[in-house]
Amino acid sequence: MSHAEPLYPALADEPTSPEGWLEAFRDVRAVTEQLCIPLETEDYVIQSMDDVSPPKWHLAHVTWFFEAFLLKPFVKGYVSQNDSYDYLFNSYYETHSSPFPRPRRGLLSRPTVADVYRYRHYVDEAMELLLCNAPSEHSRAIAERVCLGIHHEQQHQELLAMDIKHILAQNPLRPIYSKRLKVPPTRRPAPMGWRTYEGGLLTIGLEPDSEAFAFDNERPAHRQYLEPFELATRPVTNQEYIRFMEQGGYQDPALWLSDGWHLIREKGWTAPLYWVRDGERWYHFTLTGLLPVDTAAPVCHVSFYEADAFARWAGGRLPTEAEWEHAAVNTRDLNGNFADSGYLQPVATEAGTVRNPQDPPLQMFGDVWEWTGSAYRPYPGFRTLSGSLGEYNGKFMSGQMVLRGGCCATPASHVRPTYRNFFPPSARWAFSGFRLAREAT
Amino acid sequence: MSHAEPLYPALADEPTSPEGWLEAFRDVRAVTEQLCIPLETEDYVIQSMDDVSPPKWHLAHVTWFFEAFLLKPFVKGYVSQNDSYDYLFNSYYETHSSPFPRPRRGLLSRPTVADVYRYRHYVDEAMELLLCNAPSEHSRAIAERVCLGIHHEQQHQELLAMDIKHILAQNPLRPIYSKRLKVPPTRRPAPMGWRTYEGGLLTIGLEPDSEAFAFDNERPAHRQYLEPFELATRPVTNQEYIRFMEQGGYQDPALWLSDGWHLIREKGWTAPLYWVRDGERWYHFTLTGLLPVDTAAPVCHVSFYEADAFARWAGGRLPTEAEWEHAAVNTRDLNGNFADSGYLQPVATEAGTVRNPQDPPLQMFGDVWEWTGSAYRPYPGFRTLSGSLGEYNGKFMSGQMVLRGGCCATPASHVRPTYRNFFPPSARWAFSGFRLAREAT
Amino acid sequence: MSHAEPLYPALADEPTSPEGWLEAFRDVRAVTEQLCIPLETEDYVIQSMDDVSPPKWHLAHVTWFFEAFLLKPFVKGYVSQNDSYDYLFNSYYETHSSPFPRPRRGLLSRPTVADVYRYRHYVDEAMELLLCNAPSEHSRAIAERVCLGIHHEQQHQELLAMDIKHILAQNPLRPIYSKRLKVPPTRRPAPMGWRTYEGGLLTIGLEPDSEAFAFDNERPAHRQYLEPFELATRPVTNQEYIRFMEQGGYQDPALWLSDGWHLIREKGWTAPLYWVRDGERWYHFTLTGLLPVDTAAPVCHVSFYEADAFARWAGGRLPTEAEWEHAAVNTRDLNGNFADSGYLQPVATEAGTVRNPQDPPLQMFGDVWEWTGSAYRPYPGFRTLSGSLGEYNGKFMSGQMVLRGGCCATPASHVRPTYRNFFPPSARWAFSGFRLAREAT
Amino acid sequence: MSHAEPLYPALADEPTSPEGWLEAFRDVRAVTEQLCIPLETEDYVIQSMDDVSPPKWHLAHVTWFFEAFLLKPFVKGYVSQNDSYDYLFNSYYETHSSPFPRPRRGLLSRPTVADVYRYRHYVDEAMELLLCNAPSEHSRAIAERVCLGIHHEQQHQELLAMDIKHILAQNPLRPIYSKRLKVPPTRRPAPMGWRTYEGGLLTIGLEPDSEAFAFDNERPAHRQYLEPFELATRPVTNQEYIRFMEQGGYQDPALWLSDGWHLIREKGWTAPLYWVRDGERWYHFTLTGLLPVDTAAPVCHVSFYEADAFARWAGGRLPTEAEWEHAAVNTRDLNGNFADSGYLQPVATEAGTVRNPQDPPLQMFGDVWEWTGSAYRPYPGFRTLSGSLGEYNGKFMSGQMVLRGGCCATPASHVRPTYRNFFPPSARWAFSGFRLAREAT
Ligand SMILES: [Fe+3]
Ligand SMILES: [Fe+3]
Ligand SMILES: [Fe+3]
Ligand SMILES: [Fe+3]
Repeated sequence: MSHAEPLYPALADEPTSPEGWLEAFRDVRAVTEQLCIPLETEDYVIQSMDDVSPPKWHLAHVTWFFEAFLLKPFVKGYVSQNDSYDYLFNSYYETHSSPFPRPRRGLLSRPTVADVYRYRHYVDEAMELLLCNAPSEHSRAIAERVCLGIHHEQQHQELLAMDIKHILAQNPLRPIYSKRLKVPPTRRPAPMGWRTYEGGLLTIGLEPDSEAFAFDNERPAHRQYLEPFELATRPVTNQEYIRFMEQGGYQDPALWLSDGWHLIREKGWTAPLYWVRDGERWYHFTLTGLLPVDTAAPVCHVSFYEADAFARWAGGRLPTEAEWEHAAVNTRDLNGNFADSGYLQPVATEAGTVRNPQDPPLQMFGDVWEWTGSAYRPYPGFRTLSGSLGEYNGKFMSGQMVLRGGCCATPASHVRPTYRNFFPPSARWAFSGFRLAREAT
Repeated sequence: MSHAEPLYPALADEPTSPEGWLEAFRDVRAVTEQLCIPLETEDYVIQSMDDVSPPKWHLAHVTWFFEAFLLKPFVKGYVSQNDSYDYLFNSYYETHSSPFPRPRRGLLSRPTVADVYRYRHYVDEAMELLLCNAPSEHSRAIAERVCLGIHHEQQHQELLAMDIKHILAQNPLRPIYSKRLKVPPTRRPAPMGWRTYEGGLLTIGLEPDSEAFAFDNERPAHRQYLEPFELATRPVTNQEYIRFMEQGGYQDPALWLSDGWHLIREKGWTAPLYWVRDGERWYHFTLTGLLPVDTAAPVCHVSFYEADAFARWAGGRLPTEAEWEHAAVNTRDLNGNFADSGYLQPVATEAGTVRNPQDPPLQMFGDVWEWTGSAYRPYPGFRTLSGSLGEYNGKFMSGQMVLRGGCCATPASHVRPTYRNFFPPSARWAFSGFRLAREAT
Repeated sequence: MSHAEPLYPALADEPTSPEGWLEAFRDVRAVTEQLCIPLETEDYVIQSMDDVSPPKWHLAHVTWFFEAFLLKPFVKGYVSQNDSYDYLFNSYYETHSSPFPRPRRGLLSRPTVADVYRYRHYVDEAMELLLCNAPSEHSRAIAERVCLGIHHEQQHQELLAMDIKHILAQNPLRPIYSKRLKVPPTRRPAPMGWRTYEGGLLTIGLEPDSEAFAFDNERPAHRQYLEPFELATRPVTNQEYIRFMEQGGYQDPALWLSDGWHLIREKGWTAPLYWVRDGERWYHFTLTGLLPVDTAAPVCHVSFYEADAFARWAGGRLPTEAEWEHAAVNTRDLNGNFADSGYLQPVATEAGTVRNPQDPPLQMFGDVWEWTGSAYRPYPGFRTLSGSLGEYNGKFMSGQMVLRGGCCATPASHVRPTYRNFFPPSARWAFSGFRLAREAT
Repeated sequence: MSHAEPLYPALADEPTSPEGWLEAFRDVRAVTEQLCIPLETEDYVIQSMDDVSPPKWHLAHVTWFFEAFLLKPFVKGYVSQNDSYDYLFNSYYETHSSPFPRPRRGLLSRPTVADVYRYRHYVDEAMELLLCNAPSEHSRAIAERVCLGIHHEQQHQELLAMDIKHILAQNPLRPIYSKRLKVPPTRRPAPMGWRTYEGGLLTIGLEPDSEAFAFDNERPAHRQYLEPFELATRPVTNQEYIRFMEQGGYQDPALWLSDGWHLIREKGWTAPLYWVRDGERWYHFTLTGLLPVDTAAPVCHVSFYEADAFARWAGGRLPTEAEWEHAAVNTRDLNGNFADSGYLQPVATEAGTVRNPQDPPLQMFGDVWEWTGSAYRPYPGFRTLSGSLGEYNGKFMSGQMVLRGGCCATPASHVRPTYRNFFPPSARWAFSGFRLAREAT
């Protein structure tokens, strides 16, 4: 995956012309397929747990999204390649049709991988025609949905990376996804500092007059009062996490939420997902195989419960999503180790950087999704999209926690300071880490 | 249970003297035992689901609380009646000792009910001695813990009512808890109106200078910004809920959170807990047996998911806990149908009341715990109690939703506007209902 | 339970007169209640696992049996005490009515223990009237069913002992069922020898002309060809079993049936049920509390899988039920340590007995039910009883193994050489042990 | 799969020369691969339930068998292609090494299908060398193990057909395994008659002096006494089974073993596996897609419980395995609809055949494995093979029922009258049907 051309093109600004949309569409579709180039046909089929989908399912589902929400409504006489795909590749849109049961996605050998690619290209062609000849009375609606479909496919690009990692990790052969991923530099861990924020009555969520794309759950902008707080200048590192482990973090119930304590006991968790101990040393499974844990890199593949317990052990807490967003909005530096970097694993930040207390925190974007202390609930005045697309985000607003900032598998152009990702507190297969916060003294 | 003496004495103000504490202690201990008078010995033993505890376990556990946190630390040479009780009746204090597994509480025929009462009285005597002779250097600590123990026992009084109801409801014989409960009056449903609140930057949580008792989770007071909102003048009634059911509320996925939709399908829920249809009419199991559903009374025994789905169906939403508290603080009327009323079921509010738009909402307190739209998380700056008592509330701050206002089984003196109750969103065996809110137009 | 009068009267010969039946009926009813005298009310309520029934359920169910199969069919105008008992106390007779779900028997606090005894006595009176005034046209049918009902109640007497033991064993307080049980004598283990049988074409099952009572599953008598075989002169002892454990029996997959191997790994079994290690010594929970394991007594509370693995380890095998029956029929000594002995636990046989090779094997009856190598299937020509009583035995003829000989909790008059008991191969809460067999050389 | 050359070569007589073994080895290896020709790569990967293995796992496992039991012991300096395969493709030989967990076989995308074929050919070459140069001191052992390996691979050929059918059946697209399978002729159902057997003292199991190959579980031959019995002249047909269904067979508890009754209620079974109702007509999924049920063909894909319930409904019973074997031995006609026929589904026998009472029963071999009423237990004097191969059959002798006669997916040369197949009584994905028996009047 070393590319002369950048693999992940920026969708920095929304296109303003049909040609612009066409190009953006083509770009995102191409990236998805490039992500799958290293896969064997067999890798496309496996569902390693209920949360994971077979890669070929992802390829087909994002295609179905364009078909269901653009081709069928807006292309007169559009004929699908296979009627049953509407059932098989509907993920969770209950008001659209009854979706094929999620835990059974791994039982489908057909359509084959080749069939799925044929389906993609069939839809691609129809989409290109539509984008070049969008009926003017629907051009706004079409642009909005194409934009949503593109961001949707970017979400699944990240899911593909997560899921492929989980699939390969089940295999005692420890298969390597790709040997062409970039090798992270060896760096000394950056010292952790604290950045102070005054708080006050702040605006959270996407500015009402923003024309940029954002998901419905980032809206509406609203006021929120924050007490003064401090935020760590970088995420917690593997080195710090290993100290937590060594000092009995997984054995002390006083550090844990009750649900977390019962979970780690039931599952026998004593380290992040994918970690393996060999003698004195920790290794972890990565998309380039089993590697020694880089102590300077942010810890990754921990659940909310583990992040929360570490924070309590360290005398801090997780930031709320509003605190995180306030800090992020003011960072003015959205760069980070995203999928575009070509590592597909978290990387230590450059060490030794002299930092002023006024400097913005490091690594807010990329590397690891950062667990916040906020449950995923609607903003005041939240409205879902109309129709089946109303199921996109809103119906998941229970039982999950918010994560912020994107990760090493997120396309750089996909993330914003206001972006709200969410996972159940027990989830570990995402590239999830965390950063400490504390009350300002 | 018609009592010349009031069953539930008020703990309106914290006692200021040892005699005051002694009286308060005796009162709460007596109420618990009076609640159990109607029970058969066999009723004390059953655990009808993991969430439910056998009544005799409750009787012993609240006793253990005084023993573990007062007698053992503060009475020199205190000898327990039975050392194993420290294991059997520790509920969830992992840092105190390893608790006996919760789902196995119903497997303990011994200690017998009589043994448990003996244990209670043994501890009562030791507590009375302690309260009359508290070492002055610990008098503040003792007062604080006695106060906590009293409120703890009140919580278990409510749990006793919930659990006894659930236990008896399993039995096809439909046993009646007590025929001496008061019979609710027949009332016409009050019309539902809306009360508008301007919002703004408000203080939520217990005022910092308050000397009144409150749990740690109600602290610290902090500022929160609320957009203008409207709150329904009373909870949703059975009549309204039946309309929701009749109009397909349980069949339309667009109304439900995803977790809720899967839950009702898996469990086959189509009505509140304890409801039984007989021909055209709905009945429900109560502590006085199977009764016709009173259409004017607040709907009860619904999960958060059902409350949330109803609200969406009705074009509203659930209030946040801050909205609810803001309204409640300003209600200045904490009266309601509490356990002290002697109904132990929700009752319709008086109908036909002429109401001004400025009037405070009705039934904010008592009748049903009201689900809010807020996940149960710590307030900014939250600190747990020190030692094992730190496990009292804080460790449950994930996976649960906040309910407010107390219910028909709550001792009146137990509730405050700032009181935060919490249950998992799927729970239905509490006396849980809800009230609508919406954005102010 | 030391009785001037024998607790367990013999039903050695079927009564021939109404008075005889009346006396037999009264006897069996009285024994059941005497078994429960040591229980606390709370003990009657618990269901410690799905296989176990609360003692009060047993008391009511055996009563229901007489009501359903005698009073209702044969007493004109019989009025039940409570119609719902027909539902609650039907165990598994699906063609009679839909039985109350077995795993929910422990959720019934009502009817109370006192109610159940009232129900017993109500039915007792009606039964006595019926037995004294049996309509002559039904006298044969009535005698047959009373006889069945008496043996049925005896079966539940044994189940009561098993279930009470299991219930009390869940409790960390290790409650003692009764301190009045007889204390087993200390004996040296008898040396184990082998008794040879020639085999040949033998008759198995109840002789066709037998008038003695037997269950349908013991019929019809039929011919079976046995190869020559040898049978151990006594059951395997605790001492021998401890050696198996110490020599890695639970760790060597080569010794185990596949189902057994997976079971012991999943459950973590490394010793018989109720065994607890304390330092170097093994203790086991008994109806008189926690006692050191008597090395000379037969091993008890082992599953079929464990018996089978031990036999393989010892170079032998379990006898088939035909082999066992052939040996037992020729023993001509049905004495043994039955419930009537008052131990309610297996006891070592008298040591030092000089034994000739022609002597019959010891302890064929009583002490422990002996697992055989035979799956529980119908004999050739097997016919069930007509009507709902056809469900008595026949429908359980899959997935279970046959055990023979009765145990220390079986009424002596209940067992015969042809008696076929059966349990799933994983069951351990019965008083189950085993004896070795091998091919004759 | 229409083959000029016969797909399934007969192993009618054991080869007597190295060349003979080489040819037999090559034949069986070729057949397995030919069975997989119609598969897509994706089909090879799926594990549709714990009992099913991915086709590529079968391909590798049978190869591992030759490697583990022939190449490693007998080829000096043999180097495996990949050491981890010994772990991945060991099915259940616990004494050989710890096998990879069965339910996780479907999580392995690697080795790829191509890798597996490479592994096959690598082992094939080594095996050919070994067979051509077998060290004379081991030639007998090698011949025995090759013979076992060949029969083992034949067993997996049948499992492949069963598993492929189950895998494809999960898919709403209803994929067709192969369009080149032969289409069954349309025949009228043959009338069912009864053939009487006198019984007596008979020899069951493989004759001691037989040199033919047989599994250890068919030995030793032993005497068994059979009462006179009658056996149906053909298996139960779909037409007869539909009548059972229509007349409430699945609703009447009196017909069912208790385990069976609970199973069909829990699973909601009301028809054989793979059956789908469309209006008035029944269809079933086959390896050539969804077809109308052929009423004249033997019913297939029923569990033991369903076979047993049907037999009870029809006033008969299932034959014991000894009865079946006695009839089969005397049939002297081992022909039938085996895999070699190219149907891979049961086919109606030729209708209208005039049959004498003395004629042997029809369709004893092929079409459907016939459930017997016999639990799968060892024959008297049974000895397992030595070493890890002792786990081949013996350790499964609990919890399963014997089936006889082979089916439409069994290689014809694989079956004998003494052949004992076995499945749990709940299994339905094998090609399992049944034939009635009854006592001779
Ligand atoms: Fe999606
Ligand atoms: Fe408590
Ligand atoms: Fe019974
Ligand atoms: Fe195999």
